[in-house]
Amino acid sequence: MIFETLVTTVGADARVHCAPMGARYAAGEVILMPFKPSATLDNILATGVAVMNLTTDVRVFAGCVTGRRDWPTVPAERIAGRRLVGTLAHVELQLEACDDDAQRPVLHFSRVCERTHAPFPGFNRAQAAVIEGAVLVSRLRMLSAEKIDSEMAYLQIAIDKTAGPAEREAWQWLTEAVAAHRATLDQGRAAA
Amino acid sequence: MIFETLVTTVGADARVHCAPMGARYAAGEVILMPFKPSATLDNILATGVAVMNLTTDVRVFAGCVTGRRDWPTVPAERIAGRRLVGTLAHVELQLEACDDDAQRPVLHFSRVCERTHAPFPGFNRAQAAVIEGAVLVSRLRMLSAEKIDSEMAYLQIAIDKTAGPAEREAWQWLTEAVAAHRATLDQGRAAA
Repeated sequence: MIFETLVTTVGADARVHCAPMGARYAAGEVILMPFKPSATLDNILATGVAVMNLTTDVRVFAGCVTGRRDWPTVPAERIAGRRLVGTLAHVELQLEACDDDAQRPVLHFSRVCERTHAPFPGFNRAQAAVIEGAVLVSRLRMLSAEKIDSEMAYLQIAIDKTAGPAEREAWQWLTEAVAAHRATLDQGRAAA
Repeated sequence: MIFETLVTTVGADARVHCAPMGARYAAGEVILMPFKPSATLDNILATGVAVMNLTTDVRVFAGCVTGRRDWPTVPAERIAGRRLVGTLAHVELQLEACDDDAQRPVLHFSRVCERTHAPFPGFNRAQAAVIEGAVLVSRLRMLSAEKIDSEMAYLQIAIDKTAGPAEREAWQWLTEAVAAHRATLDQGRAAA
């Protein structure tokens, strides 16, 4: 079972890096599989810690896949890391083991500290649509124009019916990214 | 903005009724719009209270639209109601005003008590797919066979990639409901 989270790490230059990442929970562990190479992997291997942010602010997910990676953070409580402001909950992670891999090392973490900052308000279909749209935008180069169009049209329904301002802003970023991708393809065809 | 919640109410006969319901949050209020007629509406008008359950156990959503309405509950803290066992959070509601309507009265509630029982574990794409599938199953009679098939096939992807046992069980109930609907249609055609 995979949960969509936002992992914040801190580099040797003290810069905070925020990346969407699927997390697995197993026997008290948290398992992350960052791609190689990535700033998240570099930072975790250098510092031994990370923060898993459990937020329903889908702007951060859509933002990270559309070049908006600068989200406000505050210091973690028990590790030398930072958590997102406005996250519903966060877990401070200590790296315990790393199964190396050419593409995606498997990182095993213990939970140093867990905090809930706000209650879960329930499922929102527009938030789920933004998450799906963010996955789609992160894979634009692998998908046909028809598949992209049909998925975006399907997801748009939940946006129209159930979104709030944050979800609409996130969706706008994703639709702009799809349009920019299309324009690049069209330019490529015109040049050919 | 609409959140997908499960509302538990208690009837004059002390029977607990559980129903999926979209909730809106506005200026401290919780707004529900149950259909007329419905057990939820009858129970709320009779008792003046309801419990809004904020759970990520999507079996309850899928169960309620496939005839599985009997989910374990425990007493609420401050009202004469019941909340779901295993819910991440719940809010105990007191009816303050009712704008009547021929189809969907607008019920305004104050929050008597709010409790968080477990931390939000992050978005899970399979849970979102079950929520979409439950909406689809509740509208089978209004949808074409092609639309049902294409949506179920799309949602299946997230199930295959990110589901746990609870999500797979919920999804099974939904696919069975779709198959039963199809069999009814086929029988209708054969008889015609």
